[in-house]
Amino acid sequence: MRILLTNDDGIYAKGLAALYTSLSAIAECLVVAPEVEQSAVGHAITISRPLMVREVRKNGYFFGYAVTGTPADCVKLGVKELSNGPVDLVVSGINRGANVGINVIYSGTVSAATEGLILGIPSLAISLDSHREADFTFAAEFAKRFIQMIAKRPVAGVALNVNVPALPAEEIKGVVVVKQGRARLVESFERRVDPREHVYYWLAGETLVAEDEAWDSDASALKRGYITVTPLHCDLTRHDMIEELGKRISDVLL
Amino acid sequence: MRILLTNDDGIYAKGLAALYTSLSAIAECLVVAPEVEQSAVGHAITISRPLMVREVRKNGYFFGYAVTGTPADCVKLGVKELSNGPVDLVVSGINRGANVGINVIYSGTVSAATEGLILGIPSLAISLDSHREADFTFAAEFAKRFIQMIAKRPVAGVALNVNVPALPAEEIKGVVVVKQGRARLVESFERRVDPREHVYYWLAGETLVAEDEAWDSDASALKRGYITVTPLHCDLTRHDMIEELGKRISDVLL
Repeated sequence: MRILLTNDDGIYAKGLAALYTSLSAIAECLVVAPEVEQSAVGHAITISRPLMVREVRKNGYFFGYAVTGTPADCVKLGVKELSNGPVDLVVSGINRGANVGINVIYSGTVSAATEGLILGIPSLAISLDSHREADFTFAAEFAKRFIQMIAKRPVAGVALNVNVPALPAEEIKGVVVVKQGRARLVESFERRVDPREHVYYWLAGETLVAEDEAWDSDASALKRGYITVTPLHCDLTRHDMIEELGKRISDVLL
Repeated sequence: MRILLTNDDGIYAKGLAALYTSLSAIAECLVVAPEVEQSAVGHAITISRPLMVREVRKNGYFFGYAVTGTPADCVKLGVKELSNGPVDLVVSGINRGANVGINVIYSGTVSAATEGLILGIPSLAISLDSHREADFTFAAEFAKRFIQMIAKRPVAGVALNVNVPALPAEEIKGVVVVKQGRARLVESFERRVDPREHVYYWLAGETLVAEDEAWDSDASALKRGYITVTPLHCDLTRHDMIEELGKRISDVLL
């Protein structure tokens, strides 16, 4: 099995290293990851600049390719140019911080997995619910077991978004398959003025809303101590509105 | 009615100017748009740099704010900081080039509208199916009529993705509400070497696949000469897989 490994925290991130160590035991791992941190880039791709590619070594050995682009760029370039053969699985992570609720839309980590899906390759994103100096050992070990399971019978037509609580292994309650919930960050901006009197703003005040979430949504299950798995696709259509909207529009416009 | 206008082609784009002219007849328009082109940035937001804001004048009059960020940044900042009062509608466009099929995922134009949705504001993205020197007059006029219609009874919980064919008005067959289809670009990379022997790649070969698309999908209806309207939300969950996947995982892992 050949796994393309990427992330959005950048090629030197600890979460990626943990995943590389763990997954190298079961697969040939090709690392293609952003040169610098790309958090919150969403599904951005780079079309107006070229992508510089640099070989990165660790302890004297080839570790992977650093790319001056986004996670989605890394997946495209890894699959189409840098891999020596077909990629069987795209794995993105381990992200520092959960990717649940509306925030999935902003996540570079998850977008790498949906990019894999677009290219027709089974894919998963994995995130650890901690922004502090986190221990990725358990999440990396879980990723290995989980991948061994799905490799036997790949799940077609979805990217899997996996979130792991930052808890000791014995406190994790289990694994549940849940929907993407509606939890979101509430943001504010800090207005400042630079030394030359130009106005600028910092995005700030990021606090996850403790919404009255359904028990079967990702943020809620994660908070209760479960590893969450959410099957994602690339269809943003709100199908249940097509008919009503069609009627309203044809009544008025035609 | 107060409309926040943005786009991903940048504040000097012709499509934005056409929309501004047309919508100023029915609403107070506040332009908050990227300083430079942001195509294919998807739902990126800027968290590791500040957003510089600059007032842009046209013909001696205030036109709007240029922001060194993405379309989603512009919507957040416009709604939370730059507007003098509540925003009733977010309009993003008019984009040069259609935003249909899988490519919706990469679209900065559409992401501005989904950002409006996340903030609880009725939103729409509008794109013209032409990459050449396009005439935005008809699309801008249609946007005005369409907005007058939805303003009477706003559509809650969705962002509307509107695509207009680049055809003379009399050749446009009508308006249809359709789903996001599966059409996508097929990409390739061009490998080059810089004067200092560093390898780099250009994303190239972008051709829309003429897929065997359902008649009720966006790319297909647009190609047949219809204006398409697609209701979008922020839920990427593939709901139909939750049960099956849950069963498989509980069988194996627990």
